[in-house]
This record gives sequence, structure tokens and C-alpha cells, in this order.
Amino acid sequence: MSPRSRSQRRADTERRLAEDIDLWVATAGEDGAPHLIPLSFDWLDGTIILSTPTTSPTGRNLAAGGTARLALGPTRDVTMIDATAEILPLDALPSAQADHFATRTGFDPRQEDTEYSWFLIHPTRIQSWREANELAGRTLMRDSLWLD
Amino acid sequence: MSPRSRSQRRADTERRLAEDIDLWVATAGEDGAPHLIPLSFDWLDGTIILSTPTTSPTGRNLAAGGTARLALGPTRDVTMIDATAEILPLDALPSAQADHFATRTGFDPRQEDTEYSWFLIHPTRIQSWREANELAGRTLMRDSLWLD
Repeated sequence: MSPRSRSQRRADTERRLAEDIDLWVATAGEDGAPHLIPLSFDWLDGTIILSTPTTSPTGRNLAAGGTARLALGPTRDVTMIDATAEILPLDALPSAQADHFATRTGFDPRQEDTEYSWFLIHPTRIQSWREANELAGRTLMRDSLWLD
Repeated sequence: MSPRSRSQRRADTERRLAEDIDLWVATAGEDGAPHLIPLSFDWLDGTIILSTPTTSPTGRNLAAGGTARLALGPTRDVTMIDATAEILPLDALPSAQADHFATRTGFDPRQEDTEYSWFLIHPTRIQSWREANELAGRTLMRDSLWLD
């Protein structure tokens, strides 16, 4: 397969952001320990919305470090997202947005006994590639701006 | 679906280790930045073998921090592996093992112009789950030992 154009990769990435349910979330602990888990997500106005227990490793890492690296798609059709994270108490997200998250993911953190938070993930860099022949031209967003 | 037994999860995990081609590799930089990429791997005598450019973010993080967290499988059928990493120059791995890696993955780092290293990944903890009902009982290996 010949490498996709940037516009095609952006369209494929935006479709995944709109339609996929899960992604991978990598964070780093203050002690330098890498962490990685799959989480469900929603995508709203350029922001990825996650929810995980406030005191879980990912919750603590996002609150302390404020950065994450996310992966969408299978290993040979990836979108990689570097991002900053903003933490919100559960009741701070408008209920229409929380309802949208719960409908899309089938999971409503407001119903849990454990304390969850919302994490608003703001992409700063997005890259997309399938195989080695797509490593060139993989950057779709830089400094939070989509490239032309 | 009812939750799988530990022995079933171990069998499923060992099959993935023997047969899958790619996994996700999360590392942390000395500056606290999380990193995540998909890589091909081989599995030999309890060790995961990776190869990536020596000076890539993953290469540098593994050399400096010595730890990684890996994921096998799709987001709703995961094996999560916490591990220590050992770096080897390309010519330090027996050629039969390097040949096995190249045959399995279709990628031979010895043929690259860029400087690659081998990374021997030694699992210390392995967990496996599909959905929320499998979170209990997810630990299969602890302190580098498979649980009974």
C-alpha cells in the first residue's frame, strides 16, 4: 500500500476519535514508573474526555504530571496523541456531556462507589501511521494546531 | 461471559506471547514524559525481545530507567506486563536468536542504517483481563513468578 496523504490520515484519525470506544493511555509516575491502561473515551470539541478513579495510578499521574500519550487503533494502524490533562470533579462537567460519555462508552462514573474524576485531555501533537512506509509525514498536529 | 480462571488466562497470555507479532511499549523519560509506541517482539525462555533505535525515546528511556509497561492484545482482551529492561548491543545476541526475531517479525535490525539495540524485557508482573468482571483475579505473575 502506498502511504496515505496527510488529509487522508487526518480524516481517518477524526473518524476514530468520533467513533472508537477505547484507547490506550500512557502516563508517568513521579517516581519515573511508566503506566499504561486501556480506557473508554468521548471526543467533544477537540478534547478527549476520560474518567478513571481519582487515586488510581493513571489518575494520580495525570493530576501530578499533567501529560499523557495516547494511542488509538491497532498496532499497524495507529494514531498517537501527546496531550496535556486537566482534572475535573465529577460534578463539574455539564450533565449533558457526562450523559453523552455514558451513552457512548456504556460506563457512567457517576454511578460508581469509588471516587472518579473527569480528565479533559487536550492534544498537543497527533501522529498517524500504519507501517514503516508511513513514518514520513506522520505528524498531523503540532503545538495543538492541525497542519495544513 | 463469566470470568476466566487464572489458568485459562495464563494459557491465553502464553499463546499471545508465543504467537502475536506486536505489542505496546510504555516508558517514562527522565523528565517525566510518558512515551508509548507499538513494537514487534519475540518471546524466548520467559524474556520478551525488542529492538528499537538506541537513541529513540523508547531506547533512551529503557536504557536510563530500566523499566517498561507493555500491553498485548486489544483493549477488551488485554495482558499488561510490568518489566525490567536490559540493553544489549546488536552483536551481543546469539545470531540464532536474532534470526528467530527477524523471521517472526519480518524486521531485522541488523540490516538497518540507524543504530539499533536489543532490549531484553524481563516480566516482573503480568495481569490479564477482558472486561470489568475480570478485574478481580487479574494478576497472573508477581515478583517475576507465575502464581499457582
